[in-house]
Amino acid sequence: MKTPFVTKEQLDAICTQYATPFHLYDEKGIRENARKLKQAFAWNDGFKEYFAVKATPNPTILRILQQEGCGMDCSSYTELLMSDKCGFAGTDIMFSSNDTPAEDFCLAAKLGATINLDDITHIDFLKETIGTLPKRISCRFNPGGKFAIANTIMDNPGDAKYGMTRPQMVEAFKKLQEYGVEEFGIHAFLASNTVTNDYYPTLAKILFETAAALKNETGAHITFINLSGGIGIPYTPDKQPNDILVIGEGVRKAYEDVLIPAGMGDVAIYTELGRFMLAPYGHLVTKAIHEKHTHKEYIGVDACAVNLMRPAMYGAYHHITVMGKENEPEDHVYDITGSLCENNDKFAIDRNLPKIDMGDILVIHDTGAHGFAMGYNYNGKLKSSEILLREDGSTKIIRRAETPEDYFATLDGYWDVSL
Amino acid sequence: MKTPFVTKEQLDAICTQYATPFHLYDEKGIRENARKLKQAFAWNDGFKEYFAVKATPNPTILRILQQEGCGMDCSSYTELLMSDKCGFAGTDIMFSSNDTPAEDFCLAAKLGATINLDDITHIDFLKETIGTLPKRISCRFNPGGKFAIANTIMDNPGDAKYGMTRPQMVEAFKKLQEYGVEEFGIHAFLASNTVTNDYYPTLAKILFETAAALKNETGAHITFINLSGGIGIPYTPDKQPNDILVIGEGVRKAYEDVLIPAGMGDVAIYTELGRFMLAPYGHLVTKAIHEKHTHKEYIGVDACAVNLMRPAMYGAYHHITVMGKENEPEDHVYDITGSLCENNDKFAIDRNLPKIDMGDILVIHDTGAHGFAMGYNYNGKLKSSEILLREDGSTKIIRRAETPEDYFATLDGYWDVSL
Repeated sequence: MKTPFVTKEQLDAICTQYATPFHLYDEKGIRENARKLKQAFAWNDGFKEYFAVKATPNPTILRILQQEGCGMDCSSYTELLMSDKCGFAGTDIMFSSNDTPAEDFCLAAKLGATINLDDITHIDFLKETIGTLPKRISCRFNPGGKFAIANTIMDNPGDAKYGMTRPQMVEAFKKLQEYGVEEFGIHAFLASNTVTNDYYPTLAKILFETAAALKNETGAHITFINLSGGIGIPYTPDKQPNDILVIGEGVRKAYEDVLIPAGMGDVAIYTELGRFMLAPYGHLVTKAIHEKHTHKEYIGVDACAVNLMRPAMYGAYHHITVMGKENEPEDHVYDITGSLCENNDKFAIDRNLPKIDMGDILVIHDTGAHGFAMGYNYNGKLKSSEILLREDGSTKIIRRAETPEDYFATLDGYWDVSL
Repeated sequence: MKTPFVTKEQLDAICTQYATPFHLYDEKGIRENARKLKQAFAWNDGFKEYFAVKATPNPTILRILQQEGCGMDCSSYTELLMSDKCGFAGTDIMFSSNDTPAEDFCLAAKLGATINLDDITHIDFLKETIGTLPKRISCRFNPGGKFAIANTIMDNPGDAKYGMTRPQMVEAFKKLQEYGVEEFGIHAFLASNTVTNDYYPTLAKILFETAAALKNETGAHITFINLSGGIGIPYTPDKQPNDILVIGEGVRKAYEDVLIPAGMGDVAIYTELGRFMLAPYGHLVTKAIHEKHTHKEYIGVDACAVNLMRPAMYGAYHHITVMGKENEPEDHVYDITGSLCENNDKFAIDRNLPKIDMGDILVIHDTGAHGFAMGYNYNGKLKSSEILLREDGSTKIIRRAETPEDYFATLDGYWDVSL
């Protein structure tokens, strides 16, 4: 059973202040979770979480995480700009990108961000682009093949576009040393949205062993290992959430088993979590505005895939609570739809829910990450506002809703079409 | 074999003027195709194509189609605004929407657009929203079940959220007459992107028979039948394009077989084509900026799913031409990737192509519809410009590229976060 982080009374009051649909974020939940992550890795002196900005690119969210000691993991020019504008020092920015445009590397270097090279060819590309190489750099590793835990295939790194092969890691570390790089990091991302406490420890062991071997093979001074993202959340109510304290202990064990004996007990552990940091602490709040009884039963809401694309793109499950009806029997079977002329614009298909009446407020859960961020403007629909529920129960708008003027902005000057 | 609508020399010249990536549209192709559609239905006095704005919401494109006699099919508030600003009269606007917000109905009514009701409940919703009902209205029909042509299942209307059941159509027509509606239309969309000359004639026959029966059952005066969209294009080079002249003749035959004997020879035929009108006449032009040799061979380009989401969302095939290498052997197997931190950001997977060198210009075909329109800003990436290739071979920018300022626009006033 998933419970919203607001009560019906709270949300009704919030809905009198802000027009639905909107994304609502739970400051308290975000902070508590960030502190728990820090606690889980407190055994590692250099530990730092670099929040994956792409998950929730909102300055207020970034500032909350900054106060909790997080840095930022940026994947693009605008994410670098946003982090800089939010006051993150270069040392608090990781730049993890792939197929990277030259201007992105320039800005990352200018800000003093730590650059995580996705490919061996990026060494010369970076050198030619910024004229030199930073003293400190990271390389992204892709072991290939399939990544399995206890005979369960988690993901398929061999089909992923990211990272360097094992031989390329050696070649890259050697070449980078020749180019004057003094400090090295290793990064890998092998599976997305894992809901098992074993993923990070298993990945850590692979990376720690790789690091110890690379140190031997290349003499490189490895100072940090970046476990990247991949710690997921349980979108469906039947799943148990990850226990980050157990995960931290698992990584510690791998650290003590591998890195300490290798004389690498000063290596800092980094993470680049996005979904784990934010997803459960965001709700998409929407109102039932139409009901339809045709070949199936439909409830139309005032949000659509523009506000949350994961169900349309991935067929992803997002739990739905009909506010005030938590204890009513789930004896109706609905498709919950948005208004796009696109049949995949459904937040739920054949979902058992209590009877929904027009005007009911629905909370769509776990939308705090890759929710607003993946929004598009298909059918000319406008993106919603983002609202912060503060720790004291008050609310604050942290992004305004789009207007038609925003939608038309790139057409300024192109209306007077004399063909 | 798919051939770009520009030569390498033309495109090289265009690329010195505009930074890649960009969407390029072929005015000549758009006009010729629109004229052919008109020719195909010239036998029907009232024929009109209402272009599905959602496919390519650009004022210059809309104006070209306007000059070719098209009206506009709008699905939202901003599409209505755009059509109005482009000078379309209400009579030239069809408003086909579902799960419709009240303000969209208000604007559609204010502009005098023909409203196409998606659901029977929308009758009272519309009446309450705008205070009255227009004299002329359309109802969307969903026959349910599976839609098949020659034992091939085309699509599954019974699972589609759109339209009314057959009994609801009767009920709706009766109720609307009681409310004073005098002129009726019928609309249905049963399959998407069909590549067969039989789709429209088969659909037409169903709709014509339904119309004749509804006229008998309700006495409603039916003046138009809207075949909607669904005429597709061959994305893969092995498929033959639809022959719109054959399709027009097929619809004519159904018209003569069903409507004329029913005394309905004055019914106007409408279409709401988007993909058919624009897709082949758009190219996404992008440059190869990275090559990667890991567990697979990758070419990284400067476009990404932000510019064209169909491969990421639907696994859709888009043909790729490496400009200037049309006659070279396709002896390399590449994944063509964009720069998103999202492994589905691939324009092609395991695609046989000629050897690609850095700086090569790639044309991604059939991006003129649902290309730019489906763009998002994931990873903080910015949307590209749109360029028109005019009939005289000159070019004209018809939408500027986004800037970081556009991306940050809804955050104005929310940067100074004192938590």
